[in-house]
Amino acid sequence: MPKKSKSEITVPKSPQLPLGFRASGSACGIKSGKLDLGLLVSDRPAVSAATFTTNRVKAAPVRLSQRHLRRGDLRAVIVNSGNANACNGERGEADARTMAGAAAGALGLAAHQVFVCSTGIIGVPLPVEKIEAAAPGAAKALARRGLDDFSRAIMTSDKVNKVAGARFELGGKKVTVTGTAKGAGMIAPNMATMLGFIATDAAVAPDELRSATRAAVAASFNCISVDGDMSTNDTVLTMANGAAGNREIRGGGPGSALFREALAGVMLRLAQALVRDGEGVSKFVTIEVRGAMSDRDARRVAEAVANSSLVKCSWNGSDPNWGRVIDAVGYAGARVDERKVRIAFDGHPAAVGGVVAETPIEVLKRVASQPEFTVGIELGIGAGAHTVYTSDLSEGYVAYNRLEYALKIQGR
Amino acid sequence: MPKKSKSEITVPKSPQLPLGFRASGSACGIKSGKLDLGLLVSDRPAVSAATFTTNRVKAAPVRLSQRHLRRGDLRAVIVNSGNANACNGERGEADARTMAGAAAGALGLAAHQVFVCSTGIIGVPLPVEKIEAAAPGAAKALARRGLDDFSRAIMTSDKVNKVAGARFELGGKKVTVTGTAKGAGMIAPNMATMLGFIATDAAVAPDELRSATRAAVAASFNCISVDGDMSTNDTVLTMANGAAGNREIRGGGPGSALFREALAGVMLRLAQALVRDGEGVSKFVTIEVRGAMSDRDARRVAEAVANSSLVKCSWNGSDPNWGRVIDAVGYAGARVDERKVRIAFDGHPAAVGGVVAETPIEVLKRVASQPEFTVGIELGIGAGAHTVYTSDLSEGYVAYNRLEYALKIQGR
Repeated sequence: MPKKSKSEITVPKSPQLPLGFRASGSACGIKSGKLDLGLLVSDRPAVSAATFTTNRVKAAPVRLSQRHLRRGDLRAVIVNSGNANACNGERGEADARTMAGAAAGALGLAAHQVFVCSTGIIGVPLPVEKIEAAAPGAAKALARRGLDDFSRAIMTSDKVNKVAGARFELGGKKVTVTGTAKGAGMIAPNMATMLGFIATDAAVAPDELRSATRAAVAASFNCISVDGDMSTNDTVLTMANGAAGNREIRGGGPGSALFREALAGVMLRLAQALVRDGEGVSKFVTIEVRGAMSDRDARRVAEAVANSSLVKCSWNGSDPNWGRVIDAVGYAGARVDERKVRIAFDGHPAAVGGVVAETPIEVLKRVASQPEFTVGIELGIGAGAHTVYTSDLSEGYVAYNRLEYALKIQGR
Repeated sequence: MPKKSKSEITVPKSPQLPLGFRASGSACGIKSGKLDLGLLVSDRPAVSAATFTTNRVKAAPVRLSQRHLRRGDLRAVIVNSGNANACNGERGEADARTMAGAAAGALGLAAHQVFVCSTGIIGVPLPVEKIEAAAPGAAKALARRGLDDFSRAIMTSDKVNKVAGARFELGGKKVTVTGTAKGAGMIAPNMATMLGFIATDAAVAPDELRSATRAAVAASFNCISVDGDMSTNDTVLTMANGAAGNREIRGGGPGSALFREALAGVMLRLAQALVRDGEGVSKFVTIEVRGAMSDRDARRVAEAVANSSLVKCSWNGSDPNWGRVIDAVGYAGARVDERKVRIAFDGHPAAVGGVVAETPIEVLKRVASQPEFTVGIELGIGAGAHTVYTSDLSEGYVAYNRLEYALKIQGR
């Protein structure tokens, strides 16, 4: 029998697409032979909700997809990796439209029914003719079991593909929520170089889907940080096509809580997988801030610690350097009384009352030597709380990111 | 004849202390044999002004020195390196007072006439008894030519000591402004793990010294960034003892502009030297933002670019990756119209109107391969401007900062 949580949500080991969805991943030639073109289609009308990068510099596909989303009748997603189609001016806008048209033509849809995403290098024109040529084949390859290929086709510097799923019953109907995401670099709160696509066969009212998506993103993709950089292309899309046959889920109505829990769980597992697979990452660190004057203050503290190069370097060295942590706490812009600050590594206090605790350094060092641990920061002045999932900063991250643009430009 | 600028300010090659100041640098044993204790004294009454870290977590010597500064009669500065005396609770407060008392005793001053600074590791108790034992020797070693030793004794991970000077004439009197600073890690705008000490033999009204110090810090130490971390101990102190015999400089009065120019020049040269000597730094990059809607917006953009790990990695690889620059421009929180953004490397446009420019990549690569270059960012929507001096992010930075705390704790 599959494992069930007490809320009756099942987490499948090998998530598959929900009913009525098909996907494919193919190689169109942008990444010379590797999978680089993903197609995801709902065979029946669906409602959709999305969150986008808040970067003022937005890639052309982001702007186009925002318009198509507003039309309210999305049926397909086309994604290329290897090129972000960002900062390409009017040519970029035209290329994004061409990409939507290519998918629409191959699928028998209108262009405004296609959601377009690109991820990869910024400022290099998109070889859209390769996508046009590959679109019919990508449509032909669509399959109920195509999630794995799709999830590989959207990868950039990701080392592994990421999928997550959840299942539950609603009024005797089986509902599936399945998602995939890519990340790796430029991972910051408020979205990152990340794309996330969540499909469900639940019937969900448009308002409820928007609200549930917003809440789930806030508690998952917006709580992770690898390098503090936010990209021009970040997008999370949720599509619900109702193929499960349940009675439509509405805000506050039956099934709403269960659906939100399932959606949030899928997004959180994907978000955590993004951090684990971040460029050069060797440590997965959870930063739990409690006792702040407000949740906002707690978030400021968690993000300052998560984005401190010095703190991240110490984790890379398995060094339980609480001094650098409290330093970042101090400059986070939150209200802090250092005499009340408590910092713990997996529950072992490193600092209490703002000064070194009794815990032997060997104990703290053992915690910091693990591939995953939690840094608890108790501010002791209120009830505000926030959790961020982050990573170390490694020589590997620097080595990976030293060269990109000139090499790619010269290689063309 | 020494080189003079048109404003009649001379920049000496080997700056020496102004009249009436003496300094020493000695080894008290915190850093096992290396110079780690600095003493700087004015032999006559002086007026002083200082700026301090805005970190909510402040080291004990910072809080003590703030109180002593308010008493208005500083005569000496004692500084130790190797230990920040931060986050040491009441013991830290007592140790800072003991340090002031030790200097006062050796110099025949009252404790409140002593300004105390510490720099080094956070959260490790200060071995103040070593400072007490060394204070009489440090006082005996005070010398007119002691600046060099002093500047070495305050170093932490700095590879070279930093001094800068300026000289000018005022009403027939020769005036000298001489400073030294230490930095290396935790270098961020609004102060850094940095200490700066500027001495002048000018007679300056207290208000004018405060105002001139604030302005000079704003245009120098607050315009640099190495890793975006701000320390618990940042301090810049200016002392003016009037030994030059000039008529007191007052705000807006004769000599004020010249004095401010000299002071700002000394601080700017020191600040730039801190960046050049930052941990693992191989590139010195000037980020000039122009055409923003406000100076504040320009500052946001310059700092976002300067603190982007991805941008800094690309510089480390001599990669003119303007896409990462415009990405950071977009998330800086400033008003930006990407279609108007122009990015240039030493004047060669990499992007114009938000898209790639015609400049051959080889030209941009040649610029980015230099040890020093300027990234110009023209936003084209206003008159706001700001300049930041920053560095690359290297594997060396990570390697240097991986291990510190556990090693030092275990080594005791």
